[in-house]
Amino acid sequence: MGWNNWNAFQCEVSEELLLQTAQYMVDFGLRDAGYNYIVLDDCWSSGRNDSGYLIANSTKFPQGMPPLISDIHALGFKFGIYSSAGVLTCARYAGSLGYEQKDADLWASWGVDYLKYDNCFNQGQSGTPKLSFDRYKAMSDALLNTGKKIVYSLCNWGNDDPYDWAQTISNSGRMSGDIIDTFNRPDARCPCTETIGCTWPGFHCSVMNILNKMPPLSPRTMEGYFNDMDMLEVGNGGQSDSEYVLHFSMWAMNSSPLLIGTDVRKLSPANLAIYSNPAIIAINQDKSASAAHRNWRYRVEPDEFGEGEISMWTRRLSNGDMVLALLNAGKTSLQMNTTLGEIFLDFPNLRNQTWDIHDLWANRMSDDEARRIIEERNVAILPNSTTRFNATAMSYEDGIKNNHPALMGSSIGLIEPGNTFEALVERHGVSIFRLKPFE
Amino acid sequence: MGWNNWNAFQCEVSEELLLQTAQYMVDFGLRDAGYNYIVLDDCWSSGRNDSGYLIANSTKFPQGMPPLISDIHALGFKFGIYSSAGVLTCARYAGSLGYEQKDADLWASWGVDYLKYDNCFNQGQSGTPKLSFDRYKAMSDALLNTGKKIVYSLCNWGNDDPYDWAQTISNSGRMSGDIIDTFNRPDARCPCTETIGCTWPGFHCSVMNILNKMPPLSPRTMEGYFNDMDMLEVGNGGQSDSEYVLHFSMWAMNSSPLLIGTDVRKLSPANLAIYSNPAIIAINQDKSASAAHRNWRYRVEPDEFGEGEISMWTRRLSNGDMVLALLNAGKTSLQMNTTLGEIFLDFPNLRNQTWDIHDLWANRMSDDEARRIIEERNVAILPNSTTRFNATAMSYEDGIKNNHPALMGSSIGLIEPGNTFEALVERHGVSIFRLKPFE
Amino acid sequence: MGWNNWNAFQCEVSEELLLQTAQYMVDFGLRDAGYNYIVLDDCWSSGRNDSGYLIANSTKFPQGMPPLISDIHALGFKFGIYSSAGVLTCARYAGSLGYEQKDADLWASWGVDYLKYDNCFNQGQSGTPKLSFDRYKAMSDALLNTGKKIVYSLCNWGNDDPYDWAQTISNSGRMSGDIIDTFNRPDARCPCTETIGCTWPGFHCSVMNILNKMPPLSPRTMEGYFNDMDMLEVGNGGQSDSEYVLHFSMWAMNSSPLLIGTDVRKLSPANLAIYSNPAIIAINQDKSASAAHRNWRYRVEPDEFGEGEISMWTRRLSNGDMVLALLNAGKTSLQMNTTLGEIFLDFPNLRNQTWDIHDLWANRMSDDEARRIIEERNVAILPNSTTRFNATAMSYEDGIKNNHPALMGSSIGLIEPGNTFEALVERHGVSIFRLKPFE
Amino acid sequence: MGWNNWNAFQCEVSEELLLQTAQYMVDFGLRDAGYNYIVLDDCWSSGRNDSGYLIANSTKFPQGMPPLISDIHALGFKFGIYSSAGVLTCARYAGSLGYEQKDADLWASWGVDYLKYDNCFNQGQSGTPKLSFDRYKAMSDALLNTGKKIVYSLCNWGNDDPYDWAQTISNSGRMSGDIIDTFNRPDARCPCTETIGCTWPGFHCSVMNILNKMPPLSPRTMEGYFNDMDMLEVGNGGQSDSEYVLHFSMWAMNSSPLLIGTDVRKLSPANLAIYSNPAIIAINQDKSASAAHRNWRYRVEPDEFGEGEISMWTRRLSNGDMVLALLNAGKTSLQMNTTLGEIFLDFPNLRNQTWDIHDLWANRMSDDEARRIIEERNVAILPNSTTRFNATAMSYEDGIKNNHPALMGSSIGLIEPGNTFEALVERHGVSIFRLKPFE
Repeated sequence: MGWNNWNAFQCEVSEELLLQTAQYMVDFGLRDAGYNYIVLDDCWSSGRNDSGYLIANSTKFPQGMPPLISDIHALGFKFGIYSSAGVLTCARYAGSLGYEQKDADLWASWGVDYLKYDNCFNQGQSGTPKLSFDRYKAMSDALLNTGKKIVYSLCNWGNDDPYDWAQTISNSGRMSGDIIDTFNRPDARCPCTETIGCTWPGFHCSVMNILNKMPPLSPRTMEGYFNDMDMLEVGNGGQSDSEYVLHFSMWAMNSSPLLIGTDVRKLSPANLAIYSNPAIIAINQDKSASAAHRNWRYRVEPDEFGEGEISMWTRRLSNGDMVLALLNAGKTSLQMNTTLGEIFLDFPNLRNQTWDIHDLWANRMSDDEARRIIEERNVAILPNSTTRFNATAMSYEDGIKNNHPALMGSSIGLIEPGNTFEALVERHGVSIFRLKPFE
Repeated sequence: MGWNNWNAFQCEVSEELLLQTAQYMVDFGLRDAGYNYIVLDDCWSSGRNDSGYLIANSTKFPQGMPPLISDIHALGFKFGIYSSAGVLTCARYAGSLGYEQKDADLWASWGVDYLKYDNCFNQGQSGTPKLSFDRYKAMSDALLNTGKKIVYSLCNWGNDDPYDWAQTISNSGRMSGDIIDTFNRPDARCPCTETIGCTWPGFHCSVMNILNKMPPLSPRTMEGYFNDMDMLEVGNGGQSDSEYVLHFSMWAMNSSPLLIGTDVRKLSPANLAIYSNPAIIAINQDKSASAAHRNWRYRVEPDEFGEGEISMWTRRLSNGDMVLALLNAGKTSLQMNTTLGEIFLDFPNLRNQTWDIHDLWANRMSDDEARRIIEERNVAILPNSTTRFNATAMSYEDGIKNNHPALMGSSIGLIEPGNTFEALVERHGVSIFRLKPFE
Repeated sequence: MGWNNWNAFQCEVSEELLLQTAQYMVDFGLRDAGYNYIVLDDCWSSGRNDSGYLIANSTKFPQGMPPLISDIHALGFKFGIYSSAGVLTCARYAGSLGYEQKDADLWASWGVDYLKYDNCFNQGQSGTPKLSFDRYKAMSDALLNTGKKIVYSLCNWGNDDPYDWAQTISNSGRMSGDIIDTFNRPDARCPCTETIGCTWPGFHCSVMNILNKMPPLSPRTMEGYFNDMDMLEVGNGGQSDSEYVLHFSMWAMNSSPLLIGTDVRKLSPANLAIYSNPAIIAINQDKSASAAHRNWRYRVEPDEFGEGEISMWTRRLSNGDMVLALLNAGKTSLQMNTTLGEIFLDFPNLRNQTWDIHDLWANRMSDDEARRIIEERNVAILPNSTTRFNATAMSYEDGIKNNHPALMGSSIGLIEPGNTFEALVERHGVSIFRLKPFE
Repeated sequence: MGWNNWNAFQCEVSEELLLQTAQYMVDFGLRDAGYNYIVLDDCWSSGRNDSGYLIANSTKFPQGMPPLISDIHALGFKFGIYSSAGVLTCARYAGSLGYEQKDADLWASWGVDYLKYDNCFNQGQSGTPKLSFDRYKAMSDALLNTGKKIVYSLCNWGNDDPYDWAQTISNSGRMSGDIIDTFNRPDARCPCTETIGCTWPGFHCSVMNILNKMPPLSPRTMEGYFNDMDMLEVGNGGQSDSEYVLHFSMWAMNSSPLLIGTDVRKLSPANLAIYSNPAIIAINQDKSASAAHRNWRYRVEPDEFGEGEISMWTRRLSNGDMVLALLNAGKTSLQMNTTLGEIFLDFPNLRNQTWDIHDLWANRMSDDEARRIIEERNVAILPNSTTRFNATAMSYEDGIKNNHPALMGSSIGLIEPGNTFEALVERHGVSIFRLKPFE
């Protein structure tokens, strides 16, 4: 969890942007909600020096990297940096292919905690899993050689099936082309609609496009390795509130890294409320570390983009709770329903008990509360808040153990064997529930 | 033929489970029916010792492996073990990649007779047949180097087309993603519906999904190499009796290894009857060692999962008999029919003679008889039984030569050239016949 | 052109079969029609001797290979042999992988003129064009090293796109899975319906299946390299007369090697007439050496196999003549039509002249004439015959130059610019015309 | 920009053809319009000499290459030559595989400025990006070693995804099989209709086929590397005027190299008018160097080839102007419309201002003017012409900065936020507009 500048700023990076953002994240309670990585994306360098080491751009970063990173650390964050497993980065700055150890050593010496490692200009070293694996392993080895703990995040867009081989060399791997801030509009630049057999991942992929590539990959999400669905777009203006809620919820439910991808300094109350929802974040942070299963999917009347579907998703949590998502990507609001038989498809033994259903968006922070946080800054997170959670003070894991009110949503009733559960789900929206065994 | 713990127990393995199961298999007559391998799947080890040799988990296997294997041998079984052609097994125990000879030597020294060799965490060494072949050949060579006869069973889920290259290095190879105990429900985690061009085999594949990937592979099933459709689910509770009959019959007909995948200690009479059917096992064990051909396939009214098809399958046996399967994966029972022209599609000369049709499920063991076996244990298999066969006393090959009544099912009449043969086939069921030349 | 035993006899090969067949081919005028290769397929060997050289099976070939080959040569034929670029042949005899030079040397010493080189048991050395190329080039180099001229015919079923790389190392290459003697019945064992992107060519491919994979490959047929559509099935009993006419005609039109694949000793008059049609063979032997273009294709009412299409094909010949095929793979006879604009799609300049249309099956040998040849044997081919041609006496090239009556079919009228040409084409049949410029 | 002989002359090349063409291009103002490369395609050589250097065919090029190239240079052109990354060129002349440095050195010594490098007979060195990259990089290195600046143009038809790896080794790369002079007729020889997952690019690809493969590649067109859609067919007679206008416009809009592919000596007035349109060329030469985005695409009533679609394309230019194309590949003329929301899909901030719309074909040179240029030759391009532009005198970049009347088309009105813009677009035609911010 953290923040990455790319979606909102692309190459417009600077020391000031990073420090301001970090401060706002502290002030808005986002750091304490768990967003504790500040990741600097492409365009930060200005070539290599005579010894072959990368040089930070001194205009964008006048005090240089080590002091900046110290400042970020001092604010309670870890610091992430970016490069590409190619001769150039995607924005055509110097890449790390052939310079893996030099670059890893430099970053380690700076205090870098995290590397996002892209796939551009890779000199054709792709086309079989082996070619990609070997190229990405070179940096993995280099990072390990530094002796420092540096989180290693692959960004090769799902090329050559990283979900099949990246677990032994990295901590996460992108599984799709780049996201764009749109809910479900097809885009010719993101030609793949299925994970399988697609060799040109592209970019400008919609939330639904990425989400629907996940189900076949669910067995390959595990402790220590996450399938990265790309950074969050909440706040960038391309989607409605319900669409952003869906985007955030489904990323969380699939254990995708949650990286805020917007200008935090201008966050609206509604978007702060989305990013802050502790009941959803708690799912993301659950130590089960698994992805969701799409139990069913049906076509419904298409919307203006020709798209229309509803689906039901579940995920088992480490304490035995079950998460249920009823997703409506159709043209209108719909009454959706399901049964314990469908929900516990993979767990026949659990179908015959009664479950207590908690709506995880029921306690969404009000716009008034969010506005106060934005205006007053540093509004304390009370230990009994139902809308906010201080993960710096108590881990999500402990919060769940203690049935912390901020993490449980609100109980809306029981579902018994044989019953049908119904919910009205907004157009382009999702309802998310935590089912707890009723005793 | 044998038993493997995975489908029913996954990682919950122990010395006790294996020994109890072996004893039950003896007592229920399953060993004598031919199920004479006990295979221990993943999760049995606890790392490597300083010399790089695998260590058996001493909690799960307190007396250690060699004594356990001796005990299994003493009960009249061969013993199989599991590893992966990767740095980790699928459940993230130590894998054999890079340790092939050490592991093979150890297993040989223990008396292991069989290796199931998985594909997880393979360091990207896949993507062309050559990459997979070389990786799997390393273990093949290691096993051969031991000088012991160890059956080598590949489990790479059909990746890189093992049916095209594994015959020279192994005894069987999985051709699909992992089975789940369901008849035909599509599952997003098993994205491939055809063998061809599918690079992400997944898991949670239904019986019908796996079965329908077989036809293009039929020419690549041969003496010494079987296409493994994965272990049997009969008894695990996810399918109806007719679905289990179909599952068992079609696996047998395609020469897939028959590995019981359930808790034998709790076997129901109905499921014992299925596993015991000697007329079906005789097809599986026929020395023709070939797969079935799907002569035709039509769509019919879909069931609740949107699936609906009927198909007709045949397989020529080594003695000239013909097996005919009429398969109904449709919504309701159906009257199905065929002709000698269709049945002998590949054998024009055989269309013009009269055939005697034997129903291979007609003599299915009654629930009463099965219950008695389960309760009394060690009920003798009489030489003239029509429901059971003792393959320890007489091989299936000899049984067929002698027209043993347990292997022939029951004659239901003749079919003459030009006639149409009809059978009422249950919803989600199959009728299987042995056609013998009528003289 | 020649004969290969596989389609009719598979492994039932012997000295006697080859010599008898050769004699019959002489007696029936087939050798003189141009069928001057006798090719012995798989199953001829019985392992290797201590020096690593292949041994011919002495039961099947009691006098040994060199004398047999001499006999074949003495009858006016070239002799072809078979092996596989694998450790075993497809029927599991010794393969040539790793023995390329030894085997080539042996065959050269025997007087072999032609090698059919298969793809079975290739140790996974496939999956990219480079892997297949390197494997097949090893034998190409070995054959060249012998100093003898040995025609090199690849049989890797289109795997890894041989049409894209085999021209520099061989004389022909199979482009599809094995043929079966059926017109258009789909078969699950031949899963590919398009050339592109299909990785599992299979076998049991119908005539129409193979034919419709050809169009994208047409630019890769050229002098010195032919796309081999597999051996002819005419005479094997699985197709009607019009289907066999279509099969033979379209193979010829696409410059596929014409290898008789039936028992010549039992050839029917109708089938002799098909194999003998000199006007069709002349197209096959035209030195343009190119493939046909499928100018258009439409779906029509499906037949009992669910198939139904019509198509129009053309091929420009070296003397400027144009071949036109109207192909009806539909359920019933159809009146088909076309225009000069369609026929000369690729040759705009030629659309505005008048063309004389010759029906190339108009002079088909009568059953009476064919029966007389079969019964009397050695019936002389008269120089002015319209039904037979002696290519031993005059090459097809010279025959065309001289407007030999046997090569031109029969003129059925003119087609002028703007006119529509019509022909009634039988169900599952083809009409083939040679268009000559009218002056 | 320039001229290449292949589309019109194939192998009929000669010194005379090149010099005449160059002179005509000067005389018609085409050189000064920016077409300043004369590219000699395949068939110019006659093997290698004893030292392994290529020899120019002395019949076709009697004075030899260096003098010819000097003459071409003297006429104000750069000179391009052709070879193949294989052992033979596509027309089976000597190829450069294994001779990279020798050939590069020779061409550099001759004064060659540009290399078109084909993909035929590549010895199977393809199938993964790495195999193709390494093969093409060999020539890239060789060209760089010469110390001369030689533009390097890859022609591997999109095989192995050059758009993913060729930017670091070349200046442009073909992204599809060869073009044929047809608008949208499907052709079995060009089997790929999508960029993705297609392994057999073929040839005889229509304008619409190639165009619709571009959208997924748009992010991989950039300064220094262009996706080459193949040479222009304008003038070769296979398309209508509106189709040629579309072909030329869309190639320009996608930054494809503009290579005249017809017999310049016989250019018609209409075709000269198309090739000369400076407002369209200015888009092509815009230093944004990017490709167009296909914002939407819909099916409409099919034409006689079964094809029918309309689409809307945009491209942002370096000065902030926006290009809009409304493309009608349907059966009849259609009234098409769009909005600022659609046009500025990727630029939300720009949707809320008013834009001045310039029709870029409004000032198309009249047939009378074009006829006069063709007849009188060397008609001066006046500095204030609205129909012609002298890029030798003033760069397109400066022309745009100065709002040169020849580059701006003609303003047809404003579009304000919320308005719908409409245009009547011809059957098989396109309307192209430059939108300038209205202040």
